[in-house]
Amino acid sequence: MAGCFIGMRQSQLFTKTLKNISAEETSKNAQLLTRGGFIYKNSAGVYSYLPLGFRVIEKINKIIREEINAVGGVEIFMPALVDKKYLEATGRFGLQVAYNVITKDDIDDAKKASFSLGWTHEEVLTAIASKYISSYKDLPVALYQIQTKFRNEERAKSGLLRGREFLMKDLYSFHVSEKDLFDYYEKVKLAYLRIFNRCDLYPLYTIAGGGEFTMTNTNEFQIVSEVGEDTVLYCDKCRYSENSEISKLKEGDKCLKCGGKILKENAIEVGNIFPLGTKYSTAFDLEFADEQGNKKSVVMGSYGIGISRLMGTVVEIHSDDSGIIWPKEIAPFSAHLIYLSSKDSKIKTQSDEIYKVLQKSGIEVLYDDRDNVSFAEKLKDADLIGIPVRIVLSERTVSRASVELKERNKSDIALCSIKSLVNSLKTLV
Amino acid sequence: MAGCFIGMRQSQLFTKTLKNISAEETSKNAQLLTRGGFIYKNSAGVYSYLPLGFRVIEKINKIIREEINAVGGVEIFMPALVDKKYLEATGRFGLQVAYNVITKDDIDDAKKASFSLGWTHEEVLTAIASKYISSYKDLPVALYQIQTKFRNEERAKSGLLRGREFLMKDLYSFHVSEKDLFDYYEKVKLAYLRIFNRCDLYPLYTIAGGGEFTMTNTNEFQIVSEVGEDTVLYCDKCRYSENSEISKLKEGDKCLKCGGKILKENAIEVGNIFPLGTKYSTAFDLEFADEQGNKKSVVMGSYGIGISRLMGTVVEIHSDDSGIIWPKEIAPFSAHLIYLSSKDSKIKTQSDEIYKVLQKSGIEVLYDDRDNVSFAEKLKDADLIGIPVRIVLSERTVSRASVELKERNKSDIALCSIKSLVNSLKTLV
Repeated sequence: MAGCFIGMRQSQLFTKTLKNISAEETSKNAQLLTRGGFIYKNSAGVYSYLPLGFRVIEKINKIIREEINAVGGVEIFMPALVDKKYLEATGRFGLQVAYNVITKDDIDDAKKASFSLGWTHEEVLTAIASKYISSYKDLPVALYQIQTKFRNEERAKSGLLRGREFLMKDLYSFHVSEKDLFDYYEKVKLAYLRIFNRCDLYPLYTIAGGGEFTMTNTNEFQIVSEVGEDTVLYCDKCRYSENSEISKLKEGDKCLKCGGKILKENAIEVGNIFPLGTKYSTAFDLEFADEQGNKKSVVMGSYGIGISRLMGTVVEIHSDDSGIIWPKEIAPFSAHLIYLSSKDSKIKTQSDEIYKVLQKSGIEVLYDDRDNVSFAEKLKDADLIGIPVRIVLSERTVSRASVELKERNKSDIALCSIKSLVNSLKTLV
Repeated sequence: MAGCFIGMRQSQLFTKTLKNISAEETSKNAQLLTRGGFIYKNSAGVYSYLPLGFRVIEKINKIIREEINAVGGVEIFMPALVDKKYLEATGRFGLQVAYNVITKDDIDDAKKASFSLGWTHEEVLTAIASKYISSYKDLPVALYQIQTKFRNEERAKSGLLRGREFLMKDLYSFHVSEKDLFDYYEKVKLAYLRIFNRCDLYPLYTIAGGGEFTMTNTNEFQIVSEVGEDTVLYCDKCRYSENSEISKLKEGDKCLKCGGKILKENAIEVGNIFPLGTKYSTAFDLEFADEQGNKKSVVMGSYGIGISRLMGTVVEIHSDDSGIIWPKEIAPFSAHLIYLSSKDSKIKTQSDEIYKVLQKSGIEVLYDDRDNVSFAEKLKDADLIGIPVRIVLSERTVSRASVELKERNKSDIALCSIKSLVNSLKTLV
């Protein structure tokens, strides 16, 4: 994985787990991620991703890239500084949601601001596309980026769920016709479900309202959760779902599709997809010549996943009183190697040896090599950090040439011979 | 490589090469990168990285991560929104170089701005470190990030060499003593030289002035180039080098180290390293207890590489009248597969087959599968895009079960049997 070590010693991790954190952090995701050393709050809604947190982000990015590449998305990188000229073309410069950028000289006349910080990039990419798309032969095409986005959120209070600065994957697609757009839309829907499933999340595919720039209704990927800021109505049987903002359904209704029962719950929107149609392409003269040579507007779609929000949502869903329970594919490490501090140097030698072997076998491992920390504290830290498999060495296990294996999401502990450890781990991680 | 396909068909690349570009783009790097479809200028000093350009950036990032990880750097990700509280602690809020961020409500009172866009992150990271570093046992530690940075550049006119928004790798190290800092400083110096060498750049290691926040002089990595904005004096023999801003040397002097001749040239600064000492740690109360329990200020260093500037510099140095000549390790693809358009469908079938085989062999290949483009134009595009190895199929080669191989930086063309193609390529890429 880019920028990441296969193994890391906990003594060199930079962060430590924290017992006490700011009382301001009321959301579970911010509390657990801060206590575990994954993130650090710099300002309301503005976080740093520390070594453990960065690894999780990189793993989510890897999944997203694999699945979006698989539906033909090609990665690019657009600027955060979005020129006024783009946003004025669609009337979106100076929106309440936007941050504008000024220089020291502008302080006395801030209306001179010539950039907004990008919160989405339809305008920028449509303008670029008009340079390269001119014929039906250039279509379809789908381009995406993984980028820091910015929004003026007045109440940034839910940890990674609602940030002023956040990480997003935004994909844009360009088509000759509405039919081609909707064919691709279905493919992206399935890619999105695979992405969320690989993060052990099973969203509702929710019908939501359209806007000035969409052709029809849009769709959201909603994770039912008490802390969600959206409200969805959905069938407990076929999972048909509508955002309450547009729904005429009531809790307790019978599902019109399957007869199941309609429930009403809070939910977190982890992704959304929009059939944009031709409003952006019209604003930027993005046209193509069809096979007969007739000029037509390009039909567009856009598709977003909030990466940092996804990380926060996973923690809201996959955690218990002791800490986080990372799904395997996005855990910062696959295994957490711990030894019972002891005067018996054999235990440490054996642990060092296992640490080497695991790295050589390509198993990503965090090695708690700290001697100044009690065994109880090590176990507590391991539960908080939430790595899927815990490996413990103690006098008892070493005398039997074994280790103790425990999965974070299960309660039983198994003794496993050191010889078969790598093979056992490969079935678990 | 993250987010990248092993192979790509040129018909699906999104970009096309451009014959005419804006007369504003006077720098060679911006001209060639724009004509080749690597970048798109959104505003002065603000560029998008299109599919080819993004691949180059990712390759540079990969090299940087490998070399910085090898000297113990751990990757993190800090915010672009840098809170006023950090910059006020060192008197750097509202600097002429900074962009401030305002909301719509602030337009009538822009002095309310509470964030600058980060152009460097000493303050932010020192504040974070003070949460986790308290003992000599926590040191040394080195943390880095790859991130978009922002500077208010009045004259952003040199393409990727001087941007308002640019990509940077910034590394920060924390130590118990000056000795430990300078030991690490030497290691980073060597890592930097390896990074630049892998990009086929051989910088001067230049002594430059210090500032309010550095202990001593600093060091720069300077690439001699007519378009460089810096001026360096250096020995043509031992390569001892000083920035003209602090140098007392004159052109034609005898080198005091080796007796060689001192030259004076323009140069591009692709990296810099700073022994910061304790000024930031003092500003943020970043202290540690030594082995005797005495509190001391942590000693810091910081180390930067301008990633987008590095990409621009490579193009300034490695190009000719026909286009770019990418060094192997950062080329967007290793091989460019081209067929002579013809009515002979055998050529296309053979090319399709080779395209498949190369991908299976892990050779990154751009496949010029366009039928509406002349052979001459294909060759011209290949020279402009600058992929290290060109593979050509024509009637002549196919009749001999061969292809033509040509390296971008050489003039001779070799006939190579299709059977031995993969093996031949592996010696070249």
